[in-house]
Amino acid sequence: MIIRQIHVTPVAFRDPPLLNAAGIHEPWTLRTIVEVVTDEGLTGLGETYGDLEHLGKVRECAQALIGLDVHALNAMYARIAALVGGTVHDLHGLTGAATTEKSIDRVFSPFEVACLDIRGKAAGVPVSDLLGGKVRDAVPYSAYLFYKWAGHPGEDPDRFGAALDEAALIEQTKLLINEYGFQSIKLKGGVFPPDQEIAAIRALHEAFPGIPLRLDPNAAWSIATSIRVGRELEGTLQYLEDPTSGIDGMAEVAAAVPMPLATNMCVVTPEHFPPAMASRAIGVLLLDHHYWGGLVRSSHIAAMCDAFGLGMSMHSNSHLGISLAAMTHLASATPNLTFACDTHTPWQDGQDVVLPGPLRFVNGTVPVPTTPGLGVELDRDALAVMNEQYEKCGIRSRDDTSYIQRFDPSFSPKKPRW
Amino acid sequence: MIIRQIHVTPVAFRDPPLLNAAGIHEPWTLRTIVEVVTDEGLTGLGETYGDLEHLGKVRECAQALIGLDVHALNAMYARIAALVGGTVHDLHGLTGAATTEKSIDRVFSPFEVACLDIRGKAAGVPVSDLLGGKVRDAVPYSAYLFYKWAGHPGEDPDRFGAALDEAALIEQTKLLINEYGFQSIKLKGGVFPPDQEIAAIRALHEAFPGIPLRLDPNAAWSIATSIRVGRELEGTLQYLEDPTSGIDGMAEVAAAVPMPLATNMCVVTPEHFPPAMASRAIGVLLLDHHYWGGLVRSSHIAAMCDAFGLGMSMHSNSHLGISLAAMTHLASATPNLTFACDTHTPWQDGQDVVLPGPLRFVNGTVPVPTTPGLGVELDRDALAVMNEQYEKCGIRSRDDTSYIQRFDPSFSPKKPRW
Repeated sequence: MIIRQIHVTPVAFRDPPLLNAAGIHEPWTLRTIVEVVTDEGLTGLGETYGDLEHLGKVRECAQALIGLDVHALNAMYARIAALVGGTVHDLHGLTGAATTEKSIDRVFSPFEVACLDIRGKAAGVPVSDLLGGKVRDAVPYSAYLFYKWAGHPGEDPDRFGAALDEAALIEQTKLLINEYGFQSIKLKGGVFPPDQEIAAIRALHEAFPGIPLRLDPNAAWSIATSIRVGRELEGTLQYLEDPTSGIDGMAEVAAAVPMPLATNMCVVTPEHFPPAMASRAIGVLLLDHHYWGGLVRSSHIAAMCDAFGLGMSMHSNSHLGISLAAMTHLASATPNLTFACDTHTPWQDGQDVVLPGPLRFVNGTVPVPTTPGLGVELDRDALAVMNEQYEKCGIRSRDDTSYIQRFDPSFSPKKPRW
Repeated sequence: MIIRQIHVTPVAFRDPPLLNAAGIHEPWTLRTIVEVVTDEGLTGLGETYGDLEHLGKVRECAQALIGLDVHALNAMYARIAALVGGTVHDLHGLTGAATTEKSIDRVFSPFEVACLDIRGKAAGVPVSDLLGGKVRDAVPYSAYLFYKWAGHPGEDPDRFGAALDEAALIEQTKLLINEYGFQSIKLKGGVFPPDQEIAAIRALHEAFPGIPLRLDPNAAWSIATSIRVGRELEGTLQYLEDPTSGIDGMAEVAAAVPMPLATNMCVVTPEHFPPAMASRAIGVLLLDHHYWGGLVRSSHIAAMCDAFGLGMSMHSNSHLGISLAAMTHLASATPNLTFACDTHTPWQDGQDVVLPGPLRFVNGTVPVPTTPGLGVELDRDALAVMNEQYEKCGIRSRDDTSYIQRFDPSFSPKKPRW
């Protein structure tokens, strides 16, 4: 099954004004849709980041993969490594520092996913079967709470409304649980002073007793602040995610707080494992096939976490249904991925590039698609609309910081902020 | 592709009197051949150890896998884990301590290989393609030298003759290089006092200048002896394999000798990685899919070695062509497996359960089979003959120690011996 064509299409879709340590989500969020077409006419789908520099590398590498067999993942990786060469940066830093290795993995990922989609279709099996077979029929996701403005400035409020205090977060949680059935809760923090976020977690803990809670300030805190917050939140958090920057800082915090620390920032490539394991910096890794080099390489990482006794969950950026399908297949076939995964799906609020159907939420879980490949089909009309939105929206790289500074010139993304 | 039948056949084939730290190879060596048959009539092959307790577990587990899809590796593993329950011991200890985890991995392996064989055949691709695709067209193996007796007691000398001193080892090396074209040399040590083996390595180094050399005494030495030998052999060895027992002992040696230490004894399950990495006990891991849980799990281990900067080679026990094919596919698709692999193939001297053809040595390498699956076909006549040999040979578990003690009652396999 030889790769004959690869179509790379940037898309944009509406995103609510969600706050984080880097600023606030812009009105449009970007993704890139990859379609790989074989000589036999089979098509596979992949989805990745939409930032301009990354998109350029994806386009360049797509051309270099023409003529390879869909099984030749090692050869694809080598060609991409040769072309990526250096580090492809993003502007927000919310998934940790950019490195050359991570840049290669990020570019490789959508092609790998598309090739697995094709191989699943050819073999008549779901992608989960290419990863060892599912160990759960449905993958649990968590309610991903965000502090947010009511709407983008100059626009009407969105249907989620403002969430700038505990009461509003509780309403947001109720809405998400009511619509999706989530049974775990994650709050994106790093937005308000730590005491305010401590109060929010306590309020959520009281309002939703027994439901696992997590807090992710995206490394907005100093080591001292992280330790203080971690200790104050004893008994309320399943884990605390990236309170501070870097493996050394995380290790210092980990030794002093009662709950495990999770990361999608300080351990983001295989080369981070040795120092992180030596210093016991983390207890939970948030897997993300978009930057861990696709689904098979993510399963290697899962095996490594198993060997080193790390718990696992899954990280999410704003994404569409191709990614949700890939995440669900991977999580379903990863025995030790036992914490509910993150997803931004509720915030995309029905917008998608895949046809409705296979991906739905049932009691906070996504049943694993059982049809061949990823189990999702491209909605070509939606793709065209979203590509047009990309062309018109004027955004070319995610930049939460510049956007918030338009309304709050004093905002600084400096870390630690507190 | 549902598993409908699994045939488990123990076989025995002639083995020369090869010496090692545990004693000497018996006249017959045992293996187990696994044939997995699907509802669509496709057959996949696996090969594993033949020791009676292990064979019993393989037979018991085979029944438990009927009805599973060939992709359902996670489910197979879980069923096997439930059945294996405890630790399945071997009598020789040449691949390190038995643990429950390793016992499960050992039983799982032949079924996994057979399922990959089937999946390759169904997809029309070689097994290497199911592992990411080959990164080399041929896999280099090393000349595996053994001290040996001329023949088994009471029998005529075999064609390799005795090898009990440096001169004879050099003749053995010439024979192996002449017939196979090997470009690396490994000496199984732990047989004679260390000074004699030091002299042998020096003689080989002089007789075959520029050819990489390794020495493997199977942990027959104390820490002090290991350090002394390692220092005396500076400049002659590519790596020193398992000089002493245990991760702590290896770490002490590793810190004091000039060459990397390799192991197939102190790191033999994923749970050994954390302590071994923390103590920097090893520089090279010898992969062996027979006890690392099959080919896919071995690829996880390879990724872990890459992350931790370990070199890789491949370990071998006495084996037949199904194993050689599996080893070759795995090595071909493992970018960081850059040291020539071990193989006992020359000592099986033409005996095989697979039809001649695809597996051959060219300049010390085995070209990777390119036909679907493993690329080898069962020779049913040979299988019947070898099974009959198994029934008649009287050996039910490998026991190098008891065999040598028949001729040398004073022999002790105690470690460290020196």
